[in-house]
Amino acid sequence: MAKLYFRFGAMGSSKTANALMVRYNYLERGQKVILLKPRLDSRDGERVIRSRIGLEADCEFVEEFIERTKEEWKNPVSYADVACILVDECQFMTPDQVDCLAHIVDFCNIPVICYGLRTDFQSKLFPGAARLLELADEIDQVPTVCWCGRRAHFNARVVDGKIVREGEQVFLGGNESYTALCRKHFMLGQVKPPCRKGKG
Amino acid sequence: MAKLYFRFGAMGSSKTANALMVRYNYLERGQKVILLKPRLDSRDGERVIRSRIGLEADCEFVEEFIERTKEEWKNPVSYADVACILVDECQFMTPDQVDCLAHIVDFCNIPVICYGLRTDFQSKLFPGAARLLELADEIDQVPTVCWCGRRAHFNARVVDGKIVREGEQVFLGGNESYTALCRKHFMLGQVKPPCRKGKG
Amino acid sequence: MAKLYFRFGAMGSSKTANALMVRYNYLERGQKVILLKPRLDSRDGERVIRSRIGLEADCEFVEEFIERTKEEWKNPVSYADVACILVDECQFMTPDQVDCLAHIVDFCNIPVICYGLRTDFQSKLFPGAARLLELADEIDQVPTVCWCGRRAHFNARVVDGKIVREGEQVFLGGNESYTALCRKHFMLGQVKPPCRKGKG
Amino acid sequence: MAKLYFRFGAMGSSKTANALMVRYNYLERGQKVILLKPRLDSRDGERVIRSRIGLEADCEFVEEFIERTKEEWKNPVSYADVACILVDECQFMTPDQVDCLAHIVDFCNIPVICYGLRTDFQSKLFPGAARLLELADEIDQVPTVCWCGRRAHFNARVVDGKIVREGEQVFLGGNESYTALCRKHFMLGQVKPPCRKGKG
Repeated sequence: MAKLYFRFGAMGSSKTANALMVRYNYLERGQKVILLKPRLDSRDGERVIRSRIGLEADCEFVEEFIERTKEEWKNPVSYADVACILVDECQFMTPDQVDCLAHIVDFCNIPVICYGLRTDFQSKLFPGAARLLELADEIDQVPTVCWCGRRAHFNARVVDGKIVREGEQVFLGGNESYTALCRKHFMLGQVKPPCRKGKG
Repeated sequence: MAKLYFRFGAMGSSKTANALMVRYNYLERGQKVILLKPRLDSRDGERVIRSRIGLEADCEFVEEFIERTKEEWKNPVSYADVACILVDECQFMTPDQVDCLAHIVDFCNIPVICYGLRTDFQSKLFPGAARLLELADEIDQVPTVCWCGRRAHFNARVVDGKIVREGEQVFLGGNESYTALCRKHFMLGQVKPPCRKGKG
Repeated sequence: MAKLYFRFGAMGSSKTANALMVRYNYLERGQKVILLKPRLDSRDGERVIRSRIGLEADCEFVEEFIERTKEEWKNPVSYADVACILVDECQFMTPDQVDCLAHIVDFCNIPVICYGLRTDFQSKLFPGAARLLELADEIDQVPTVCWCGRRAHFNARVVDGKIVREGEQVFLGGNESYTALCRKHFMLGQVKPPCRKGKG
Repeated sequence: MAKLYFRFGAMGSSKTANALMVRYNYLERGQKVILLKPRLDSRDGERVIRSRIGLEADCEFVEEFIERTKEEWKNPVSYADVACILVDECQFMTPDQVDCLAHIVDFCNIPVICYGLRTDFQSKLFPGAARLLELADEIDQVPTVCWCGRRAHFNARVVDGKIVREGEQVFLGGNESYTALCRKHFMLGQVKPPCRKGKG
């Protein structure tokens, strides 16, 4: 009765910090957690997951984990001591990797919680996100807000203060290149308040 | 601050009845609701939405509505008396139609609630569902259960009691051809309990 | 792994119709559902649950069910053919009745879904709602809207078009005496738009 | 259109860390956040909010804030630069304090997000939690798990390894005195697995 979770949020919504907190809660109770990210996400260097607020932890690549444990998930018993699998930047997984994790949920009865983006800078689903949206038992939003106060669901790619609509889907440039916006301001291309208010 | 809602559920989860109840609640308060379905959905005959439990109402085709009101949604004022737009079988909309409804939400400030399937009989997103998953403000599941008691998210196409994995995405054959299953039993292709219990 | 659900909504949010739809979905699959309401709720006559949209079904009183099955829920096996228990107007249950249903969830593994009001006309929790809020595994809102378009969570008791703040908690007068309002308009006591708009 | 949020979770569910992350997200965008806790919660010393994972921030007491800004929330304009109010350990607020925050949401249009416990060690609502459950626009669970893998919603007070059922509601003894359990194991009083499994 374990579940496959997809917790998506725009950039800057603390998805990674959420993943690290869930991990912390399991560890605190003496339970084993597997922390993964796709190899494609190399922003934070090799095999580390790092959040802006200052938390970090070592991880394994999704590719390695699936290869390393392929005997195990055909033989669910050996997984018995894993309480939870957490995946960061899950939008970069391939559909096959998502299928493999869904298999582990259903046949090994281990919950898998995937954190990542829903859509790219053109508001198109990432391949890993699309497969998670097809298969996930629970789909939750990790909220963040647009400069206007509405929920921000969209990731604008910003160059020289202007929204960019064309380019490669994956462009790992760090937070400075992306801004989370609500749908209206994403569509209008307004990445800031019309006349900037003070910093409060 | 209106929102675009995508309320998805497997076949037999009472999505249509839900749509008709929401409509009823608005009408009861003397508010105007627009009820739509894509033209492709011709199962229930022309311009009628009908639920298995016995509720029904007249509707308009999405195509007609977008064409008929194109002057209005460039000029939001004229929509002022519409409290809500409801769409049934929304998975059959085109991505462009979804974009148009999102525009109405953001610029005319009218909530749009879309009911439909998430995935087809091969567990692939319908085009309309994919666009809604990219754009929706709120994504909710309308729950139903598998024969095993787990949540049923998948629509198995069944012919002569057996699951079918190949064929056209759209095959409007009525409920008798589809069975809602949990992911595990969808993957295994088990459309019924192994040895049939009583009333089934 | 069954759960205790509390699905609350203001008056006029179609809670009863929702309960009847869930029941219909189970019956359609040949599964057994137990439909209950507290005896206190006598609005709809004896042992019938009736929704404004025109659906209805026979039910049993919570009191009778707990008494009738007391041997069974000490001996979970005998419940094996019940797929789900549904309770309408659950706010009128006593805390002990809620505890009994929670026991059935946990020890007989049968899901119990309770539909009802959260608060009374003074925005105070009903006793049954308070106990459900303490114990429920899932707490969901059945949405309805205020005349202003915001979510309506509050039940204003209205006499001669004016909000009433004093009186008995239970006053079974039918829908005509209550209006669902958002918190702001409940606090302000505005049960209608300042200058009434046309019927749309 | 701001909302009042109640995000409840059992002890050890990272509610405080969640509050600090939300604060961080606002600050990162140069927006002003007010961080509060009731004076009663003196576990972490004076005017500091501290999470087990290692995050902390200065805060103000709810009592002081309400007193200090009483001119302001009668005169909403002066609040204009506050983007969000966050309250930790909100179960210790008085119902009047909750009412005051709800007023700020509705009339100053500032979102207020309250993190805290739902019930005490006897599974009874804390007064502040009860008022939040009556008034909140959104009620969300911050999940954590029991030793058995089910969601843990209950806070068992534990002395010498045994569950305690009698005593004062508020007994600020730190995490070591409480264990988060699912409802079944809370009712049975089983605070650990029957035979303890290894640390994983």
